[in-house]
Amino acid sequence: MNTAVLGAGAMGTLCSLILCNRPGRRVTLWGHRKSNVDDIALRRENRRLLPGVPLPEALVVTSEIDEAVRDVECLVVAIPSAYLRETLRDLAARIPANLPVVSVIKGIENSTFRRPSEIVLETIGPRPVVVLSGPCHAEEAARGLPATLVAASSDLPWAERVRDEFSTESFRIYTNTDIVGVELAGALKNVMAIAAGICDGLGYGDNAKSALITRGLVEMTRFVVALGGDAATLAGLAGVGDLITTCISPHGRNRHVGQRLGQGESLAAITASMSSVAEGVTTCGGVHAIAAAKGIRMPIANEVYEVLFNGKAAADAARDLMHRPAGHE
Amino acid sequence: MNTAVLGAGAMGTLCSLILCNRPGRRVTLWGHRKSNVDDIALRRENRRLLPGVPLPEALVVTSEIDEAVRDVECLVVAIPSAYLRETLRDLAARIPANLPVVSVIKGIENSTFRRPSEIVLETIGPRPVVVLSGPCHAEEAARGLPATLVAASSDLPWAERVRDEFSTESFRIYTNTDIVGVELAGALKNVMAIAAGICDGLGYGDNAKSALITRGLVEMTRFVVALGGDAATLAGLAGVGDLITTCISPHGRNRHVGQRLGQGESLAAITASMSSVAEGVTTCGGVHAIAAAKGIRMPIANEVYEVLFNGKAAADAARDLMHRPAGHE
Repeated sequence: MNTAVLGAGAMGTLCSLILCNRPGRRVTLWGHRKSNVDDIALRRENRRLLPGVPLPEALVVTSEIDEAVRDVECLVVAIPSAYLRETLRDLAARIPANLPVVSVIKGIENSTFRRPSEIVLETIGPRPVVVLSGPCHAEEAARGLPATLVAASSDLPWAERVRDEFSTESFRIYTNTDIVGVELAGALKNVMAIAAGICDGLGYGDNAKSALITRGLVEMTRFVVALGGDAATLAGLAGVGDLITTCISPHGRNRHVGQRLGQGESLAAITASMSSVAEGVTTCGGVHAIAAAKGIRMPIANEVYEVLFNGKAAADAARDLMHRPAGHE
Repeated sequence: MNTAVLGAGAMGTLCSLILCNRPGRRVTLWGHRKSNVDDIALRRENRRLLPGVPLPEALVVTSEIDEAVRDVECLVVAIPSAYLRETLRDLAARIPANLPVVSVIKGIENSTFRRPSEIVLETIGPRPVVVLSGPCHAEEAARGLPATLVAASSDLPWAERVRDEFSTESFRIYTNTDIVGVELAGALKNVMAIAAGICDGLGYGDNAKSALITRGLVEMTRFVVALGGDAATLAGLAGVGDLITTCISPHGRNRHVGQRLGQGESLAAITASMSSVAEGVTTCGGVHAIAAAKGIRMPIANEVYEVLFNGKAAADAARDLMHRPAGHE
C-alpha cells in the first residue's frame, strides 16, 4: 500500500521507516518546514528527533504536499495535536477525497476537547480512520526493539488492513474497535504522568507509583466510559500499556513537569524553562471541566489540577489523596 | 485489636510495626528461629531483613507461640508459602479456634496449587480469613513511604475491619470480596516477572516491557476467571498494581532470574548461585499444567516454561511471541 506520512517528527519518521520495510511500496514523508525536510532528505537521517537511525534511499522526503500524496492509497497523520487542525485545514484542498487515514496522534484539542480523529474528519472530510496507539517510544522502535500496539477503528476490516500493512518482525499490532477509548486514553495518560512525576519528585517509591497507576487507570476508565468508550480498552495496550510507559520512563515531558512540581517548583517557573507547555497541563484543565460537568469522580486528576492551577503544594495533594475515606475496589 | 504476627520476615515485621501505630494494642511478633527472634528483640531492629527501621518498645518479640497468641483477637500470617503448611501444622494445637486470620502471604503451594488462605483453613481450622495484598515492598513501607493495598475477604465486614485496623497516614487500604482472584494474582505475577526480566536481559526497552505487562495481565485474567475469580480484581491493586511493581523493580528475585535467562545463562547455573529457587520458577510449572488441562491460552507463560524447563533460548521465545498471528484485544 503506497502511503504518505504527514509530519516529520519522531513518530512520523518512525512510521515511514516501518512502511519502507516491504519493497515495492511508494512511501513519502512530508514535513511542514522546508529547511528541516531538506536536511532529512540530504542526510537520510532525522538528526534532530531520531538521530542515529539511517533512512532508506527509497523513502521520498518532501515538503511539497502534491508530491507527497501522489499515487498513495493511505495517509498516515503524525502531526502534533496542537497544530493538527490548522495544518490539515491548510492542506485540505490538496488531499484526495476518501483517502483513508491512519492517525498516530496522541492528545486532545485544548479549546474544544476534540479527539484527533474527529479533527481529521472535520478538516479533510469523511473517510475511513484508524488510530494506531499504545506504548511506543519512537527512539526504541526505530532501533528495532520490539513494540506492540493497537490499531483501532469502528471499521474492523480497516483496522486489520493497517495491522497487516504495519506489522514487522518487531512491530506487533492488535486490533480494537473502540476508537473513542483509544484516543481518550492517549490524552488522559498525560495527566496521570504528571501525577507520577509528582510521586517521583516527592521521593516516593515503587509502591506509591504502582498504586497511582492502578487508581489512575480506574479514573481514566470512568472518564472514558462516561464519554462513550469501552472500559476494556483501558485494560489494553492503549490504556494501561501506554500509561505504564509514560509513568515509568524518565524521558517524558509530562512526568518531568510533575517531578519538578513535586520538588516544589511552581508551574510558572517550570513552563518558563521549557520550550513549550507539556500537553498534560492543558489536558488536565479540559479533563477537570468535563469531569465536573458530568459528575465523574477523578480524585487524582483533581489534585493534579489543584497543584497546577491553584497553587496547592504537591505534598498536601498527596496527603489529601491518602486521607480520603478508603473505598471498595 | 490485639494481634499476633506469625513470621518475622520483612513483611511480618512491617505488619507488626504498622499495628503498633495505635497505642493501647498488644502486638506480638512471633518467629520460628529463636536466635533470630532474640536478636530482633534485643536490638529492636530486624537487621537482616528490615535494617535501619527501629521497632517500638511496646512490640513483644518472641519465639514462644503461647506468649505470642495470648489475649490476641487476630492473627496475621506472614510465613513464606513454601513453609506455610508445615509451620501451621506444628502450631495448630496452640492456636485458638476461630481466631480470625489476616494473610499477607503471596505465592502458591507447589505440589497442590493450593492458595495460602486454603492452607490456613486446612491446617488450623475454619475461621474468618482476610487477604491483604497489593504493591508493597516492605522496605519502602517501613520507611513511611505511601503504599496502597487491598483487603480481600468473602466476608466484607471482616475486610472492612482489617482496612480500619491497618490504615495509617501512609498505608491506605481498599476492600475487595474476591479472595480467589487476589491470591492467584499474587502467585501468577511471579511468572510474569520472570518474563519481564527476560525482556531486560535481552536489552529490550520500555515499549516491550509495558506491552508484556499488558498482555501478561490478559493471560493472568484468563487464568483467574477459569479458576473462579473475578476479572475486575486483575485491574486492581493486587492485579495490575502488584504486577507493575514486580516487573519494574530491580530488586525482585523472579525478575532477576529472568534477566539472567535473557542474558543466556541456564536455569541450573542461576539456581546454583542463589540461596533458594525463585518462587515464579515452580509456580510456572503449576500454571503450565493447569492451563494445559483446562485449555487456558497463556502464550507468555508457556514461553517462560519452555525457557525454564526445555532449554529454549530466551531470544527464540521472544521472537516466537512476536511472530504469532496478531489478534483482537
